[in-house]
Amino acid sequence: MIAKAHNPPSLHPPFSAYSLGMEVSGAERWLHLSGQVGVRKDGSVPPDAEGQMEECWAKIFAILDAAGMEKANMIKVTGYVTRSDDIGLFRQVRDRLMEGHEPASTLVVVAGLANPDWIVEIEAVAAA
Amino acid sequence: MIAKAHNPPSLHPPFSAYSLGMEVSGAERWLHLSGQVGVRKDGSVPPDAEGQMEECWAKIFAILDAAGMEKANMIKVTGYVTRSDDIGLFRQVRDRLMEGHEPASTLVVVAGLANPDWIVEIEAVAAA
Amino acid sequence: MIAKAHNPPSLHPPFSAYSLGMEVSGAERWLHLSGQVGVRKDGSVPPDAEGQMEECWAKIFAILDAAGMEKANMIKVTGYVTRSDDIGLFRQVRDRLMEGHEPASTLVVVAGLANPDWIVEIEAVAAA
Repeated sequence: MIAKAHNPPSLHPPFSAYSLGMEVSGAERWLHLSGQVGVRKDGSVPPDAEGQMEECWAKIFAILDAAGMEKANMIKVTGYVTRSDDIGLFRQVRDRLMEGHEPASTLVVVAGLANPDWIVEIEAVAAA
Repeated sequence: MIAKAHNPPSLHPPFSAYSLGMEVSGAERWLHLSGQVGVRKDGSVPPDAEGQMEECWAKIFAILDAAGMEKANMIKVTGYVTRSDDIGLFRQVRDRLMEGHEPASTLVVVAGLANPDWIVEIEAVAAA
Repeated sequence: MIAKAHNPPSLHPPFSAYSLGMEVSGAERWLHLSGQVGVRKDGSVPPDAEGQMEECWAKIFAILDAAGMEKANMIKVTGYVTRSDDIGLFRQVRDRLMEGHEPASTLVVVAGLANPDWIVEIEAVAAA
């Protein structure tokens, strides 16, 4: 599988460390990840946005690992946050944990998630 | 096509009958379904959430059928509801109609859909 | 790559120029596009919804072009608008700029986007 980022110079660059488009050639496997939320294995939920975001990403990385993939296999991520004030933090945490990998990305503010305690949900598509 | 569910034991299990990740190998065909809403062929809309949800799923199954696929081909579903009170019902209806098939799933509460009468929209990705 | 639209006659037809489902066979390349917003290269943002929508589509077409694709390669688009009053306009602009190509489509109203000046975000998946 070859993944190629597209950021045409005629366009405004991405607003943080992601790519405007990500092209995949020769994928043999695709992995669709459910929206992950910040619920730990024991059912507890970090009270703060950063804690929930870090938990979401840890779960995404664990699911990638279960499929024999790693963060470099991520092609697209979609973030849903419930508070617009968390947008900057979402980008900071994503960019830090991606360690230089820049998948395509969509980020929107939703009216809510499946549980009122949750303030972020992140899904992803990966390929190998 | 081989679809393999990933639910790593180190993570909190899914909150209902879906998979944290769904991996696809050897897909020859992919089907992307538009967000389906609870509008019947005659243009009428069930007034209740359950009726709209059942209509959405019936339409998804009809489109899968038109492509020579069935519910076991579903890899990812995304649900958009306009009322957080319908979250539990959404899961109940999905789990009942999936009959044991557990695709990846994302579920968010949105501020609205394209018509104020609509209270649920469901899209899906399938592979064969 | 062969793309085939599915609009089963037993279902209510699409509400504008899109397809209920879009099937892809024999794809060698997939392109996932980040949600595009109406920010021009110089950082300015059209104040009106139509201007922002046209900018989103222009960016999508530029990214497709960078990947050696064109609008006929678009399989699925997802539109996020922040104001329900813009739904009709969203469909008009999309249908006009698609020039007869009818990908699968989802359209939802979100509580906000990553910047309060943005009133529309559009992402897409394409194949070749």
